[in-house]
Amino acid sequence: MRVLSGIQPSGTLHLGNYYGAMKQHIELQHEHECFYFIANYHTLTTVQDPGRLRKLTADVALDYLAMGLDPNRAALFRQSDIPEVAELTWILSTVTGKGLLERATSYKDKIAKGLTPSMGLFSYPLLMASDILIYRSDLVPVGKDQVQHIEMTQDMAGYFNNTFREVFVRPEPRLNEAAIVPGVDGQKMSKSYHNTIDLFGDPQEMRKRIMRIKTDSTPVDQPKNPAACNVFALLKLMTPPGEAAEWEQRYRKPGMGYGEAKKRLAELYEEFFGARRAARADWAARPDDVEDVLRAGAKRARAVAQEVMADVRDACGIVVAQT
Amino acid sequence: MRVLSGIQPSGTLHLGNYYGAMKQHIELQHEHECFYFIANYHTLTTVQDPGRLRKLTADVALDYLAMGLDPNRAALFRQSDIPEVAELTWILSTVTGKGLLERATSYKDKIAKGLTPSMGLFSYPLLMASDILIYRSDLVPVGKDQVQHIEMTQDMAGYFNNTFREVFVRPEPRLNEAAIVPGVDGQKMSKSYHNTIDLFGDPQEMRKRIMRIKTDSTPVDQPKNPAACNVFALLKLMTPPGEAAEWEQRYRKPGMGYGEAKKRLAELYEEFFGARRAARADWAARPDDVEDVLRAGAKRARAVAQEVMADVRDACGIVVAQT
Repeated sequence: MRVLSGIQPSGTLHLGNYYGAMKQHIELQHEHECFYFIANYHTLTTVQDPGRLRKLTADVALDYLAMGLDPNRAALFRQSDIPEVAELTWILSTVTGKGLLERATSYKDKIAKGLTPSMGLFSYPLLMASDILIYRSDLVPVGKDQVQHIEMTQDMAGYFNNTFREVFVRPEPRLNEAAIVPGVDGQKMSKSYHNTIDLFGDPQEMRKRIMRIKTDSTPVDQPKNPAACNVFALLKLMTPPGEAAEWEQRYRKPGMGYGEAKKRLAELYEEFFGARRAARADWAARPDDVEDVLRAGAKRARAVAQEVMADVRDACGIVVAQT
Repeated sequence: MRVLSGIQPSGTLHLGNYYGAMKQHIELQHEHECFYFIANYHTLTTVQDPGRLRKLTADVALDYLAMGLDPNRAALFRQSDIPEVAELTWILSTVTGKGLLERATSYKDKIAKGLTPSMGLFSYPLLMASDILIYRSDLVPVGKDQVQHIEMTQDMAGYFNNTFREVFVRPEPRLNEAAIVPGVDGQKMSKSYHNTIDLFGDPQEMRKRIMRIKTDSTPVDQPKNPAACNVFALLKLMTPPGEAAEWEQRYRKPGMGYGEAKKRLAELYEEFFGARRAARADWAARPDDVEDVLRAGAKRARAVAQEVMADVRDACGIVVAQT
């Protein structure tokens, strides 16, 4: 089984990003062959500042390597290092109805949010389908909002296969476990709410944010409801096996204060992410090694892409280039 | 000055194709640096039969070589041998509004004619702009119906240059001289009217068609109006300098029959196209030599395309691949 995922650079990562998708990406490397690409062509639809795009692209690699992506297992590469993807995008466009793209809800959402309706935003699902199909991917880990794109990819694979011949594998979505990650104010953790606990943030600042997590005002000598507590929701994600159950019991009995739970959370945060922060700094000091990782990843991915493209070209009558 | 033109394979060529555009393409090689590509990616929007697309692609090369394209002057190549074009298409899509494409009249015309509204048809002007801009083309010979596409290309070049920095040259359209080429029935010569005289047709059959060209019934002993005569319109295109003026005088005096004019036309046709028919057969017998021409053309074109793409990538922050 080949797993594919495109990572949209999103700047400073927080616990919501990690427990929402990144953790699962990294775990999947032990079960399947994983191809993870940094989606810089996609990002160009929203980031049109070359310095910022370069930095965002570089940061994704550092973030994933720091968090334990093993380049000997998973192939990590830049989308733009496989230019064949753009060629397949064009070819898919010739067998795909405009109506299919017009039904894409994510495009409508983006326009509703005020983004400029560019051809890039509109054609986004074509590029995404090309990214998936060019590696004959079996599984694509996605959030709920991306399932429609995978269905569109399945449709496009079908259009091509029916028009020419059976070239593409039908990819299936793999829904990310929907981890509930509250921010320090209790809303969903999100950069736009300014309520994040960052993966590689300043340790003092992050400890402060943890100690400020919003709780109710149940006094120490009263039992508390863990299911309604933001601190407990984060403890559940971060504690070693068994410990969450202990905390649940302590919550339900009198005598535990929220401060205690927060202190433990801060400790767990630093234990886990402190080491990753150091690993990130270490990779950041060795840009040539990062570049080597990306090149090796691109080489593995491109070998598959070129083989598939030779097949695609043959199927549709585009003479195979031999220059 | 660099001249660029994309040649859409259209099957069996006729005098209308030749005097409408091809002749001018071939003449331009003596005045400018010419890049002519066989637009097989474009053709994929309408031809979805691999065998036919391969044949159409190969035929364009034979047709142009037979008609005198000099591969040492003009670069002749397949569009798909420069895959960078597809990458630039994506990048241009991120700076181009969907509205611009929606205003393309040629798309509306194609849909009105019953073509399926695919994303390829809709995005066609983006691919065309990419083809033009990637070679820093100065001049693009076009028919009237294509002028809007050149204007869109100018717009897209502007969007990119304004968003990032000055990378693209502004191309200008060069209107093909609108030669009037009547078919044997007097309507515009066109495959769909079945009224063509083909460039490389069977000599007997072509002679028959010429002798069947529709004229009015003015008898031999009456003066005739050359301006209203289909035979004269073709004579004007095919006679050596000075001879058309002589025919004009003969038309205006009594004593000339249309049969005479047709005979001369048939003679001129065979003189000129007979030699080209032989040249085409000669090239067709040497497919490796044709392939060499196309590869050498692609090499010249790709050197420019790769240089421009390095600049494009740098300007928009796509890290330059080094795999």
